[in-house]
Amino acid sequence: MTARRRFIAQSAALAALPFIGTRTTRALAAASRPKLGFALCGLGDLSENIIAPSLLKTQRCRLTAVITDSPAKAAVWQKKYGIPARGVYTYDTMAGLADNPDVDVVYVVTPNALHLQHGSAAARAGKHVFCEKPLEISVERCQQLISAVKAANRRLGVAYRCRFEPHHLEAARLARSGELGPLRTIDAYFGFNVQPSGWRLQRGLAGGGPLLDLGIYALQATRYLTGEEPVWVSGLTTKGDAARFSEVEASVLWQARFPSGTVSQCGASYVSAPTDYVRAIGESGSLTLDPAFNYSGIRGVRSDGRPFDFPDIDQFAAEMDDFARCIQEGTPSIVSGEEGLRDVRILVAIYQSARSGAPVKITHA
Amino acid sequence: MTARRRFIAQSAALAALPFIGTRTTRALAAASRPKLGFALCGLGDLSENIIAPSLLKTQRCRLTAVITDSPAKAAVWQKKYGIPARGVYTYDTMAGLADNPDVDVVYVVTPNALHLQHGSAAARAGKHVFCEKPLEISVERCQQLISAVKAANRRLGVAYRCRFEPHHLEAARLARSGELGPLRTIDAYFGFNVQPSGWRLQRGLAGGGPLLDLGIYALQATRYLTGEEPVWVSGLTTKGDAARFSEVEASVLWQARFPSGTVSQCGASYVSAPTDYVRAIGESGSLTLDPAFNYSGIRGVRSDGRPFDFPDIDQFAAEMDDFARCIQEGTPSIVSGEEGLRDVRILVAIYQSARSGAPVKITHA
Repeated sequence: MTARRRFIAQSAALAALPFIGTRTTRALAAASRPKLGFALCGLGDLSENIIAPSLLKTQRCRLTAVITDSPAKAAVWQKKYGIPARGVYTYDTMAGLADNPDVDVVYVVTPNALHLQHGSAAARAGKHVFCEKPLEISVERCQQLISAVKAANRRLGVAYRCRFEPHHLEAARLARSGELGPLRTIDAYFGFNVQPSGWRLQRGLAGGGPLLDLGIYALQATRYLTGEEPVWVSGLTTKGDAARFSEVEASVLWQARFPSGTVSQCGASYVSAPTDYVRAIGESGSLTLDPAFNYSGIRGVRSDGRPFDFPDIDQFAAEMDDFARCIQEGTPSIVSGEEGLRDVRILVAIYQSARSGAPVKITHA
Repeated sequence: MTARRRFIAQSAALAALPFIGTRTTRALAAASRPKLGFALCGLGDLSENIIAPSLLKTQRCRLTAVITDSPAKAAVWQKKYGIPARGVYTYDTMAGLADNPDVDVVYVVTPNALHLQHGSAAARAGKHVFCEKPLEISVERCQQLISAVKAANRRLGVAYRCRFEPHHLEAARLARSGELGPLRTIDAYFGFNVQPSGWRLQRGLAGGGPLLDLGIYALQATRYLTGEEPVWVSGLTTKGDAARFSEVEASVLWQARFPSGTVSQCGASYVSAPTDYVRAIGESGSLTLDPAFNYSGIRGVRSDGRPFDFPDIDQFAAEMDDFARCIQEGTPSIVSGEEGLRDVRILVAIYQSARSGAPVKITHA
């Protein structure tokens, strides 16, 4: 019975990952369609260490171009990934993407406050846009990016990798199934100790601190575990050492209320030992993901002690393949630009509450 | 090295539990002093199932009297514990305790809002008062009880069992040692699904809901893990089903700020699967107690995976023996009436914040 239920849960979770099948099925499917060409826009650590290696593991995507202002980086990438000279762009020459049929999607991996500029440039060049989270640093800028991509009749997706991760899918299923009883409280946290340099600490580029960078994971979790939108938030921020935190908060905590009565308490921090967890407490049971937001090794357990175990997946490959699938099949993405906007609207309200010292009500469009 | 450090930690923790020693030492010490006579005031489930059995395991205490308005209960207790007829009182005849030299301490286990009445009556009869938590339901009533006991030149203690529990002692030591780096965030929660009847759901007797009953554990933990007093709190409460929650909140969440910059998020709930944990996150490490507030089976683990394991102790025996020791040795109690007042002042501020929807600053006396 336990084994059967676990199998069903796994099947349900895996069904959401269309790229996973038998080896034969995958090979047949892959042979019947061309892979979408991806241009990586921004060649920082995330692109270099995580996204590019993951891209090589996708079923539906191939790396065909890079966008960088660093000729040195471009040269390294060209050699490493076999990218031709015509596949190298700077941020100022992105209009030239319009003439490159090998690029279908531009994956924007630049700092938060540059997403509008780079995503819009990609859309104007006729490319679909896949964008790192947060979508942008304000509601207005998110709306402008959404409009720019829509005007180009292209697709916009946000890189919410946990939306494709089996433990998170099972946690959301469980929380919303009623098996835990009415969901009462969600407690989620993501923190680490940030390096003393880099754009994440610069307000102009990051738009904010750990709330935008890490809190968005906790916020997303509360939204997909409840299946609801928060209608009330109350936030507080803390200051950190002057050496690192002259521009952004060191930590943030927030509470939220959801329409059905569920409440959440979440936190994000740049002055924290590496810590990430989600706990969802219902009236008759609870579940914990801990660690919750890592690239691998996520563990889930119910309050009765039963773990929910799934093999690690490549979360970045999964999100890229899903976006490619949506484009190829013409189906909606669960991580659309509008979904990215929903989070930013709430994150901005949390900052507003922290500044004013009063709770903020949120009206959803 | 690990074993040695664990031994040191255990020794430090156990040293705080003066009643624990070798069997020989205990026997010698016990023989050299008379046990203090305890009267249990209020014979509900807690007294019957937990406190009385624990009292039998103490080194310094003996059960010599009961205070109840139920003749039937009194008869059962007399028989079970060999209590003489002169050791049976009603709430109205507590003045008679003055004539009973077999009673040194009255342990008040009645509903929260009766602590002032019963504790004051005990003090007027010349008895020391050990009181279940919360000390009372308002700052003023706490102060009145403290004054009443002080006027009688007797001792007042509050039954904070976790203050004597080795995992909590080690967690506090670790959090305050700097080993985790500066302490950034504490996350603590205590909830269960309350029975649909009983005084805990009646505002007149309980003074409030899960905040006073369960939240006090989480609040205490934030205070002894930081060694500081919160200076700012922000709370929210939720309503529950009308059948149970016409008078008190169903759940409460609160945030607090401490002077050194540590922030906390805590929760307490009567509509929750049984859940209790404490997580303290420093800049370079963290610790978790989970379960944290049970009578037994508490488990502690550091973020590096090292558990801190101690044998279960009888927490009620420990707190009673410590209070008896303080009386016998004339030393201060760490769970004084003033300590009880500190918590109530903060709990009341959390309710105030939840009502007003605005944070409340706390000034400590």
